[in-house]
Amino acid sequence: MVPLHAALNRVLSEDIVAGENLPSFDRSAVDGYAVKAEDTVGATQFKPRTLQMTSETLVGSRQAKQLWTGNLIPKGANAVIMLENTKRKEEEIEVWVSVTPAENVSRRGEDVSKGEVALKAGTRLRPHHLGLLAALGKTEAPVVEKPKVAVLATGNELVETGKPPRENQIFDANRLVLSALCRELETEPLDLGISRDDVDEISEKLKFGLQNADAVITSGGTSVGGSDLVPDAVNKIGKPGIIVHGVAMRPGMPTALAVVNKKPIVILPGNPVAAMIGFEVFVRPLVWRLLGAECETRPVVQAKMTGRIVASLGRKTFVRVRVSRHEGVFLAEPVSARGSSMISTMTKANGYVIVSENREGLEEGEIVDVSLFGCVEVVDDDV
Amino acid sequence: MVPLHAALNRVLSEDIVAGENLPSFDRSAVDGYAVKAEDTVGATQFKPRTLQMTSETLVGSRQAKQLWTGNLIPKGANAVIMLENTKRKEEEIEVWVSVTPAENVSRRGEDVSKGEVALKAGTRLRPHHLGLLAALGKTEAPVVEKPKVAVLATGNELVETGKPPRENQIFDANRLVLSALCRELETEPLDLGISRDDVDEISEKLKFGLQNADAVITSGGTSVGGSDLVPDAVNKIGKPGIIVHGVAMRPGMPTALAVVNKKPIVILPGNPVAAMIGFEVFVRPLVWRLLGAECETRPVVQAKMTGRIVASLGRKTFVRVRVSRHEGVFLAEPVSARGSSMISTMTKANGYVIVSENREGLEEGEIVDVSLFGCVEVVDDDV
Repeated sequence: MVPLHAALNRVLSEDIVAGENLPSFDRSAVDGYAVKAEDTVGATQFKPRTLQMTSETLVGSRQAKQLWTGNLIPKGANAVIMLENTKRKEEEIEVWVSVTPAENVSRRGEDVSKGEVALKAGTRLRPHHLGLLAALGKTEAPVVEKPKVAVLATGNELVETGKPPRENQIFDANRLVLSALCRELETEPLDLGISRDDVDEISEKLKFGLQNADAVITSGGTSVGGSDLVPDAVNKIGKPGIIVHGVAMRPGMPTALAVVNKKPIVILPGNPVAAMIGFEVFVRPLVWRLLGAECETRPVVQAKMTGRIVASLGRKTFVRVRVSRHEGVFLAEPVSARGSSMISTMTKANGYVIVSENREGLEEGEIVDVSLFGCVEVVDDDV
Repeated sequence: MVPLHAALNRVLSEDIVAGENLPSFDRSAVDGYAVKAEDTVGATQFKPRTLQMTSETLVGSRQAKQLWTGNLIPKGANAVIMLENTKRKEEEIEVWVSVTPAENVSRRGEDVSKGEVALKAGTRLRPHHLGLLAALGKTEAPVVEKPKVAVLATGNELVETGKPPRENQIFDANRLVLSALCRELETEPLDLGISRDDVDEISEKLKFGLQNADAVITSGGTSVGGSDLVPDAVNKIGKPGIIVHGVAMRPGMPTALAVVNKKPIVILPGNPVAAMIGFEVFVRPLVWRLLGAECETRPVVQAKMTGRIVASLGRKTFVRVRVSRHEGVFLAEPVSARGSSMISTMTKANGYVIVSENREGLEEGEIVDVSLFGCVEVVDDDV
């Protein structure tokens, strides 16, 4: 249980059953007068009905009581006439329209009725969900504990940012990216650091990760220098070990999937773009499963390709594109098809298109589904 | 300046100029052999060229040096042949394809070149942006300070969640919702609590908000019981005061906009749905402005209406819909057009459609733009 103000983006662990009706009493939906609907039958601007004002708790025959939006409907009344459809004359009102029973009334339980499941287990709590919980009088919510995901980078070429790189070394970006992606999904990353290309060192770090987290993700060390260091290390530490090695997608072909001690390990390539796409395809649904939540897919827009893309048969190709909207039309511009090592293709893009394994590419002008991971620029649009 | 791991979703306050080339040296993009491209001219599977293996730092004529992805291209070489296009024969390799200069080489500065603006001020830092900063060796980023937004709810009918409601009282949900919406936009909400329907009490709380925050948002107290308590309070405390009162949208008509002491005040209606829509339309762009960020719009999908919607001429109508995807087609189902007091219309919906002020509604089957605030359910789809 966490207080509501701390529950944003957490996932409900139980159904929330309304303990009360919402609204808890019949309320006026407008500013106006509570009346008996039958007293207004036939009223028009030319043949108004006249009703007596009352301030009693009971509205009697041919009486009207002034109300504001949200006020309790008084006993005896069954409808509300909007202020603008009446004319006040001292202790009387002229009524210009007829109303039907329940008109302009928010009925008790109309929003949520007592005993109804207001929100289902697995719901990721967005601001409007919190609003419903608060309206029901809740002060806290039962949420799923954040899964812990351990993150390891491997590679002799990697150096920690902030340290001076030796010749031919590069800064490790993947741990930061993968940890940030985990954090966005409301899981807690556990940093396993950088391992050198050494099966024993990798094994030790993986073991620590498996002991202290619910899942482990790694980058690099698969098909490196012709050998499979991380897969070898995984198979060394437990059963069943590697289950899938090599997937028909690009980038990301050397990705491997493993289970050890019933915990999942996702082995991503070292190339930063391949690691990000691999996270998208394999880690994202895994995390939703760990959270017991409905899987949240990226928003998808249909856009027109502004250029041609060449892809290979037999594998799904993830093409980074920049989507913008021009006078209501979404356009997708390919961002350098080349090189899964180029991080800038991710920062220039705001979405990706999947080219199916039985297509050799995409044509210019083709309408494609783009999964968005960034925001869309709107050009010359008046929406 | 904040450390990169704490910079997720913050907004860059300055352009980031690359201090180094990325990559910082010519690297191999594949596993294979570094060669002089001219030595491979004319090579085919039937007429292979033979090259001598070398382990020297300089690749000479008719020589080849083994490399793995990411390795430095040795001096003398200008291209890399992929492993699968060669055959190793002890100290020689057979080359089956010709390569052109720079083929399979990631050139120094190809990703980002030294001196280039890698990321612009105003960028909201998503995981892939952090990755680029790390790859450039950065350990921290200059970010815009989080704006503070004060949140006030007004209304005699409101009671704090957790306290027992008296008859005809309702729990205040708006403060929680508006604060959570602020938090999602990386601003810091300041809770001003609940004010009774009293101009003096409202004024005092507004003054405190203006002193301690960059903007104030309120809910309720506009067109309540026929009087305008919050607008009156605003006009009492400073100049220029109320600038706009009443907007041609539904829900949200009684919304008012004000400025006092150069700080913006957004006065939202008390109805929870109207308050949320008003936040969307008026507070969201305001916050982006305070952050100095490119305005992030909600993702938009084009969907087919599954039902008819009636709207009024002369005002923009915000219709809550539930979008789902059926075999590649997005469908938008209207979620109870009625009642901006019904919070459940927000939790059942995942997006909204704007009906233009010169339309009387939407037809069934019409294709509309839906702005998404929740995730889309995919039915019977194999994407």
